[in-house]
Amino acid sequence: MHKGRLEAFSDGVIAIIITIMVLELRVPADMDGHHSDEIAALRPLLPVFLSYTLSYVYLGIYWNNHHHMLHATRHISGGVLWANLHLLFWLSLVPFTTAWMGDHAWAPQPTATYGVVLLMAAIAYWILVQTIRKAEGADSLLAQAVGRDGKGKISPLLYVVAIGAAFVHPAISYALYVTVALIWIVPDRRIERVLSDGRAAGATGHPGRP
Amino acid sequence: MHKGRLEAFSDGVIAIIITIMVLELRVPADMDGHHSDEIAALRPLLPVFLSYTLSYVYLGIYWNNHHHMLHATRHISGGVLWANLHLLFWLSLVPFTTAWMGDHAWAPQPTATYGVVLLMAAIAYWILVQTIRKAEGADSLLAQAVGRDGKGKISPLLYVVAIGAAFVHPAISYALYVTVALIWIVPDRRIERVLSDGRAAGATGHPGRP
Amino acid sequence: MHKGRLEAFSDGVIAIIITIMVLELRVPADMDGHHSDEIAALRPLLPVFLSYTLSYVYLGIYWNNHHHMLHATRHISGGVLWANLHLLFWLSLVPFTTAWMGDHAWAPQPTATYGVVLLMAAIAYWILVQTIRKAEGADSLLAQAVGRDGKGKISPLLYVVAIGAAFVHPAISYALYVTVALIWIVPDRRIERVLSDGRAAGATGHPGRP
Amino acid sequence: MHKGRLEAFSDGVIAIIITIMVLELRVPADMDGHHSDEIAALRPLLPVFLSYTLSYVYLGIYWNNHHHMLHATRHISGGVLWANLHLLFWLSLVPFTTAWMGDHAWAPQPTATYGVVLLMAAIAYWILVQTIRKAEGADSLLAQAVGRDGKGKISPLLYVVAIGAAFVHPAISYALYVTVALIWIVPDRRIERVLSDGRAAGATGHPGRP
Repeated sequence: MHKGRLEAFSDGVIAIIITIMVLELRVPADMDGHHSDEIAALRPLLPVFLSYTLSYVYLGIYWNNHHHMLHATRHISGGVLWANLHLLFWLSLVPFTTAWMGDHAWAPQPTATYGVVLLMAAIAYWILVQTIRKAEGADSLLAQAVGRDGKGKISPLLYVVAIGAAFVHPAISYALYVTVALIWIVPDRRIERVLSDGRAAGATGHPGRP
Repeated sequence: MHKGRLEAFSDGVIAIIITIMVLELRVPADMDGHHSDEIAALRPLLPVFLSYTLSYVYLGIYWNNHHHMLHATRHISGGVLWANLHLLFWLSLVPFTTAWMGDHAWAPQPTATYGVVLLMAAIAYWILVQTIRKAEGADSLLAQAVGRDGKGKISPLLYVVAIGAAFVHPAISYALYVTVALIWIVPDRRIERVLSDGRAAGATGHPGRP
Repeated sequence: MHKGRLEAFSDGVIAIIITIMVLELRVPADMDGHHSDEIAALRPLLPVFLSYTLSYVYLGIYWNNHHHMLHATRHISGGVLWANLHLLFWLSLVPFTTAWMGDHAWAPQPTATYGVVLLMAAIAYWILVQTIRKAEGADSLLAQAVGRDGKGKISPLLYVVAIGAAFVHPAISYALYVTVALIWIVPDRRIERVLSDGRAAGATGHPGRP
Repeated sequence: MHKGRLEAFSDGVIAIIITIMVLELRVPADMDGHHSDEIAALRPLLPVFLSYTLSYVYLGIYWNNHHHMLHATRHISGGVLWANLHLLFWLSLVPFTTAWMGDHAWAPQPTATYGVVLLMAAIAYWILVQTIRKAEGADSLLAQAVGRDGKGKISPLLYVVAIGAAFVHPAISYALYVTVALIWIVPDRRIERVLSDGRAAGATGHPGRP
């Protein structure tokens, strides 16, 4: 019961966040307020579309992993409810940073800000995992599943590098954001093995976060 | 459990996509920013309203069939979760193409773009069906239901024709988009029989997609 | 299962419709684009707020009665799914007519248009009830509950009068819209008895629509 | 069944309200309509961000406590459905007052208006609790849990003070709004004991409202 409502609420918020981002996709108006009917006019939308796609994938990974983590969870404490709301808070800022980065491709500051929100979301997810582990006990299914979480340790590191690199060249940051997303999607056993030291969880079945 | 949350999330996203489209319905302002209070002022909204209605019907068909397909599904794999997110991604672009086509009735490029997104959604649905079939096994209820899917094969073909025809005359494309929607709604046994070679699934009970 | 997802989807759409209407509540900007920080500046928002409140109540009644009707429903056919989508279509237009009427208090045409959408929603609800009754059978719980539906018969009539009256004086229409809402909310046994000829269903427990 | 749908609908509305508020977070455009790509340009957004955060926390508290209260509820009457819709109505106005207060930091009237909506929501929550208690009976779990509700009595008082204080100095109001939120979040046993006279309910497990 408790768990069901937590899942339903999180699903609702993530579903709305994902769909709200699309509202940024608007055909640009010219100086007289007219919208072009030519596909060429959509060209300035390309970075907006690409940043939407990247954020969509990130939110998809979060939804997937949140889903798996709660599947392995039995006890929902008051702390878990707040840790979950904290995670959703940072995710709710993704449409803002996505829109800003999309409007200013190749600009260092929006690119870095995008990474900061991803980093905060990753930290919030880590806090959520710890809170659930505490409620579940050390021997729980979840504690074993997240055991030695190499993948989970490398992403925050990559975000920090990407945030700094934005001021050198935003392209480095974009490459890193895409890399982190790929690490979490691609179910490549070898990558998994290197990162998580022998444990092959299967990307979508991993209860961690990007 | 797994399945329930997948359904709930998909319902949420589709419900939001449908309702976000209505935000395009706004009484046009004149040059001073004033909105008219006369029904005549709504005339420019007619194509917006019609394209909203068309997209609403398409999303309704997707929701209906998604619903039926998952009803016949027992196993949800990681791949199914991602195939479903992929479908929702293309559906989430429908409000954008609907708004653009609605703002530019009789313009070839927005009309063709509308068809491209429908085509991509159809392909995404096909991938989802294949992913579920693989998870379910060849003898499953689902595999039998989608068996020889004539209806499912003809719609992508009609989309491709509609996309090309938009550059001849958009009216042909509109007619084709409406035709595909009707094929999926109207529970006409004869149409069904012609298209699907003897199998009468009943339009709303069909686990396919437009 | 079938029923649960129908309810969840309808809840989602109605929840979004209700909340989208609030987006109309914006502090008006002056000619330089500045928003006032004085409560007096909110005065032009009063009709917007009142029309929001009225529509909120209407959507609340629909949600309540939809809820009760489906509670008494056991069989969901393909026709029921489409009849439900049809109802949601008209409800989804309520934010548009609410915004237009709110922006133009005392204007006949927006006031009449508001009534037209209410009337269409009432007709759509009636179709939904009939479709469910057909699926359920004449002896069903639902068939008995909606039996002689006096309340359900008088509201469309009042809408039609309100639509016409808008061109005489919008105030008459407003009074009628409020009256219909009150008829459905106020659990006055006497009003109920007069309207529904002896059957006292209790307002919120009534499976009809305004 | 009844209860499940009430919860799902409330979750949906609260999830949308929370996410709609983020739409206010937009990089300010300069006079030519261009959006800056510098973090310095986000400075005017700081009060918007802070008021969003405050409202997010309030809605989180409401969701948490609503959740706990319904967990202890067995009977849902027609009155409970309407009392719940009434609560959601006031919560739905939070994005409006949040945006207005965020746009005008240190302005007395938006600050006071923010408090008025919080006060109305608190009153609506109190009505909902009373309606549920009536439906549940005096000996119910819920009646015992909300027993001597010191925390619940002090918040409306603090709102009233904050509303008045906004005209002296808005900073006092901000401090009070934050204080009320903290009272409800921080699970400090001593604060709890002082306020609720010996009963330590645990902040998140409290079925009251801020």
